[in-house]
Amino acid sequence: MQDLHHHLNFILELDKLKAVYRKALIKADNNRYENSAEHSWHIALTSHVLAPYADSSVDIARVSLMLLIHDIVEIDAGDTFAFDHLAVLSAQSIKESAAAERIFGLLPAPYNAQFIDLWNEFEKAMTPDAQFAKAMDRILPLIQNMQNNGGSWAQNSVTKNQVIQRNQYLEKSAPKLWHYVLAQIETATRNGWLKEE
Amino acid sequence: MQDLHHHLNFILELDKLKAVYRKALIKADNNRYENSAEHSWHIALTSHVLAPYADSSVDIARVSLMLLIHDIVEIDAGDTFAFDHLAVLSAQSIKESAAAERIFGLLPAPYNAQFIDLWNEFEKAMTPDAQFAKAMDRILPLIQNMQNNGGSWAQNSVTKNQVIQRNQYLEKSAPKLWHYVLAQIETATRNGWLKEE
Ligand SMILES: [Ca+2]
Repeated sequence: MQDLHHHLNFILELDKLKAVYRKALIKADNNRYENSAEHSWHIALTSHVLAPYADSSVDIARVSLMLLIHDIVEIDAGDTFAFDHLAVLSAQSIKESAAAERIFGLLPAPYNAQFIDLWNEFEKAMTPDAQFAKAMDRILPLIQNMQNNGGSWAQNSVTKNQVIQRNQYLEKSAPKLWHYVLAQIETATRNGWLKEE
Repeated sequence: MQDLHHHLNFILELDKLKAVYRKALIKADNNRYENSAEHSWHIALTSHVLAPYADSSVDIARVSLMLLIHDIVEIDAGDTFAFDHLAVLSAQSIKESAAAERIFGLLPAPYNAQFIDLWNEFEKAMTPDAQFAKAMDRILPLIQNMQNNGGSWAQNSVTKNQVIQRNQYLEKSAPKLWHYVLAQIETATRNGWLKEE
């Protein structure tokens, strides 16, 4: 029962992700800010819904678990805006690794290491599973911004090339979605929601 | 690409679950009310964390997907308090079936039927997967209330037997957790957080 106590402690710690707020707005809830817990739910489920478009090498059950845990490090490290300066993003990366050690470390062996490994796999984005997971994390803001007159892009002067780069993970892990995304980015640029340069 | 459009519409519709509030409070975020999207994230992840305690017949990947979708019907039907009157709960059940038809029906075949079937399996709770999923939905409030001087139990005069019945799904799907839960319920009753009768 000693082990169970550690599992339950980890589960309680997760509650804190509901207090980490992102830049995205929830239109359905009076445009309040989105938190990282509900965001993680949305993209984990998105991976199941878009599974028919994934390359056959992708294991959706692993992708979904990756997405459920991918933002947990923000409990200690906070959220960073995706298009922030490189120095900010690199300091963030160090904070997140320490956070992964502490938070997943609440679990007993071997589960702590399994979660840390899965989180590292997501971060490195070298496997088909991690690449499809990254793609889910990136396609959702795109869909939302397209519905919202450019949303966070327009507010933060994001360029067309930045968004193309961020969604590049789709090229191999889900080619059909990649073509769709490129077309959407063209539309956004034509509408002035993304800057040409 | 016609199908993709329907998939994306469904994904956008999901945003509305972030505006459905439950009776549970988030201690980590100034005791605001919890919404059903972040709750779904928490228990889907809880099923992975407690997987080592599940009976071997349980498929955690299916359980996790069940939990990701189990509350989506609340977009149309709203949340009901678990210990509400029977007439309220039965009217709710009819509203939820209609909601499942409408919301999962946004997806093209065969995905609409797959999701409706999975949601019905969860509701009926006759399979080991659905029983473990139900157990996750019920053990989390228990863990939270135990940390919070009885939390929503104390506020709503819930009885010991009501909580035992609600957690009974654990008995077969995760016997070790069942013994733990029974001991916690004893403690809660001793502390006056649950009523004897
Ligand atoms: Ca993210």
